[in-house]
Amino acid sequence: MKSVLIREVYNHPEHFVEKTIQVSGWIRTSRSSKTFGFIELNDGSFFKNVQIVFEENLSNFDEVAKLSIASALIIKGELVLTPDAKQPFEIKASEIIVEGFSTPEYPLQKKRHTMEYLRTIAHLRPRSNTFSAVFRVRSVAAYAIHKFFQDRGFVYVHTPIITGSDAEGAGEMFKVTTLDFDESPRTEAGKIDYAEDFFGKETNLTVSGQLEAETFALAFRDVYTFGPTFRAENSNTKRHAAEFWMIEPEIAFADLNDNMALAEDMVKYVISYVMENCPEEMDFFNSRIDKGLLERLNHVATSDFGKVTYTEAVEALKKSGVAFEYPVFWGADLQTEHERYLTEEIYKKPVFVIDYPKEIKSFYMRVNDDQKTVAAMDLLVPGVGELIGGSQREERMDVLLSRINELSLNEDDYWWYLELRKYGGTRHAGYGLGFERMIMYLTGMGNIRDVIPFPRTVKNAEF
Amino acid sequence: MKSVLIREVYNHPEHFVEKTIQVSGWIRTSRSSKTFGFIELNDGSFFKNVQIVFEENLSNFDEVAKLSIASALIIKGELVLTPDAKQPFEIKASEIIVEGFSTPEYPLQKKRHTMEYLRTIAHLRPRSNTFSAVFRVRSVAAYAIHKFFQDRGFVYVHTPIITGSDAEGAGEMFKVTTLDFDESPRTEAGKIDYAEDFFGKETNLTVSGQLEAETFALAFRDVYTFGPTFRAENSNTKRHAAEFWMIEPEIAFADLNDNMALAEDMVKYVISYVMENCPEEMDFFNSRIDKGLLERLNHVATSDFGKVTYTEAVEALKKSGVAFEYPVFWGADLQTEHERYLTEEIYKKPVFVIDYPKEIKSFYMRVNDDQKTVAAMDLLVPGVGELIGGSQREERMDVLLSRINELSLNEDDYWWYLELRKYGGTRHAGYGLGFERMIMYLTGMGNIRDVIPFPRTVKNAEF
Repeated sequence: MKSVLIREVYNHPEHFVEKTIQVSGWIRTSRSSKTFGFIELNDGSFFKNVQIVFEENLSNFDEVAKLSIASALIIKGELVLTPDAKQPFEIKASEIIVEGFSTPEYPLQKKRHTMEYLRTIAHLRPRSNTFSAVFRVRSVAAYAIHKFFQDRGFVYVHTPIITGSDAEGAGEMFKVTTLDFDESPRTEAGKIDYAEDFFGKETNLTVSGQLEAETFALAFRDVYTFGPTFRAENSNTKRHAAEFWMIEPEIAFADLNDNMALAEDMVKYVISYVMENCPEEMDFFNSRIDKGLLERLNHVATSDFGKVTYTEAVEALKKSGVAFEYPVFWGADLQTEHERYLTEEIYKKPVFVIDYPKEIKSFYMRVNDDQKTVAAMDLLVPGVGELIGGSQREERMDVLLSRINELSLNEDDYWWYLELRKYGGTRHAGYGLGFERMIMYLTGMGNIRDVIPFPRTVKNAEF
Repeated sequence: MKSVLIREVYNHPEHFVEKTIQVSGWIRTSRSSKTFGFIELNDGSFFKNVQIVFEENLSNFDEVAKLSIASALIIKGELVLTPDAKQPFEIKASEIIVEGFSTPEYPLQKKRHTMEYLRTIAHLRPRSNTFSAVFRVRSVAAYAIHKFFQDRGFVYVHTPIITGSDAEGAGEMFKVTTLDFDESPRTEAGKIDYAEDFFGKETNLTVSGQLEAETFALAFRDVYTFGPTFRAENSNTKRHAAEFWMIEPEIAFADLNDNMALAEDMVKYVISYVMENCPEEMDFFNSRIDKGLLERLNHVATSDFGKVTYTEAVEALKKSGVAFEYPVFWGADLQTEHERYLTEEIYKKPVFVIDYPKEIKSFYMRVNDDQKTVAAMDLLVPGVGELIGGSQREERMDVLLSRINELSLNEDDYWWYLELRKYGGTRHAGYGLGFERMIMYLTGMGNIRDVIPFPRTVKNAEF
């Protein structure tokens, strides 16, 4: 007999009612008396458990009554509706086979554990309600992103993870090498001889796929990346991990307005898709993790996003009279406190801040006609602050070269990036969405370590 | 006026015929006389170009007539059907704006270039017919894989890229570090002090997400990974890259037969999805890259895959009388020549070879009752050989421990993997599909460097 998934039973109980079915899964809780017992069984296919009832006529009643949490069972029984109970149906077991035993020392008992403790058992925590919900939402949100872009004909491009240049300059990098520290080859000048390394040069883990994605946008027009990126920054915060996933769309024959429209559509699509496809998980987050979550997400999904210039935003912050920790003045980068105040208190909805001073933004952002600002955009959302950062890219060779020189970057490192401007360059734009930040936003989880299956942070690469 | 995508025009010419529309894209070829000219314009949204006709009444006729290949244009004109011509329609230009110039030195001229040359211009090669087709198929195939698993309720899990252990033992690894070669911290014994490294221990790039995926399968039942993996092997072949993407599903309450059924369904689904969604690209591959491609793929998509034991396969190879380069005997690993002979000559269809000698397979594969073989499976397909490798996993703690000891592995490295067997372990199984090998199979491309946007191989990490 083949097991029925508990997801199928919840979706279509009418197919199974008063029939004998087989289910298989793991004990989440159980309790029993001398003559009967209840098991909450979870089979991984669905957030909710199914209740199993077993009675003393069961051949191995005594064994089953003593089973520890997490034991794996295969159960045959009749599905009966229970209209007066909390759960809509239960299974009256006629046979229970123990597929795998657990022990009373099982580290994930049914009690409240701290998030810190649960991180030490990252191999078991997806079996808890919270992490079952987090990681299913993570999976569904990832798919929503692919579906959003693929339905629009975007080409998914796998930009390289190992990179030969620090061309993007987005942050500190991890070195990738096969050289031996103790017997590292040296040049005549006594320096490490990277010509002897695996790739014949110094290589690092990527901090962004943007520059490579631009090469594909100038061939396929609309492209996106979705892959891991890395930062070797020694910062131990709730919002930073050394390894995280990023989505970077890039669109050609497009300007900053097209870019904002795409970002707005994408955010709304992902929110709606997850709410529609993970209703049980989202209800759980709303009741157990973050009370205002669903209201906030609904608000975002139905708001028209606002748009203000950086200059206007700075004026509004100054006018607010609020005593921020970091001072606000034209030319200063906006801090999370400013970003949240703008989106939560002043505009009360998601808002794009555009046209930042060029001094605080990257070399590749398009210089505006005022020569002081660039066509950058940051999307600020209530509860989080910055969710997305992007820009129109500088397509004019002369302007790009002078920016590279202004910032003392090495022109030769960018030969292929510059050639994109030489051979049929067009207006183009793109943005980056940190996937984990989106998951934190969707779930209300407060620490990035709790939305990554096996997080990598300073001094931590367990599992 | 907003540009219409050329994809939309091909899909629904009836919406646009005899209307004035705007398109934007890049010149693939052009030719002109004194009074009129033709441009083949590609806008990246579709494999095929649209033909633009321009005549001397165009205000900038002389400029347009002289434009180099790859110039970016925005064109307004009337779409007219051309039932007697090679192409189904063309656009009679009333206005042509040059968005970005190119130059006669453009490195991707309309002539036959070698694949080797095209690798040196990996930032431009997606603009060629071949690589436009390859990378669109790559994108669509990636989506097909996500869709296949998500439609079945599988949870997508991002297993870590940076790993603290060489637990899987699948191959040579790249070191990931922030230590300085010249000032590396040392322990009292003079060894490198990895406690001072970013993660507080020695870390590498992952060779497989399988072991971590198993932890999720024992929570969510059906899961899959899809992410980059790495091999630091100094092998310069057409089939090996240092960085490649892998798909690793893992299913609980499932055995080797379930695993084979899943692999067969997946392969057929991806082939059918790509043939349906990339017909122009697949026709191109079939006519220009690999003549028998569509026939072979159709055959695979409609065959029932075979199943033989390793022992039977070895017997069949011996009986064939063929003089293989590598000798065939029970206990020897099968080489590509053997694999291809089995699938192409003996069975003439895709075939799973199962139950390999345990000595040539990994420690985690389930030992069969004969104590000599393990429940492994390799899927061999015509034209390629091995496409997929997988197994049922050893769920019995005592057997797994004795395998770990037999192979002199360090038990402590596997503490969390072993705990999966202690706390409700179940039958489970999974496999790995090298994504690039699947793309080579789908396209007929013969070198892995030509199915990866920016390949990383020995001595090569350009772009």
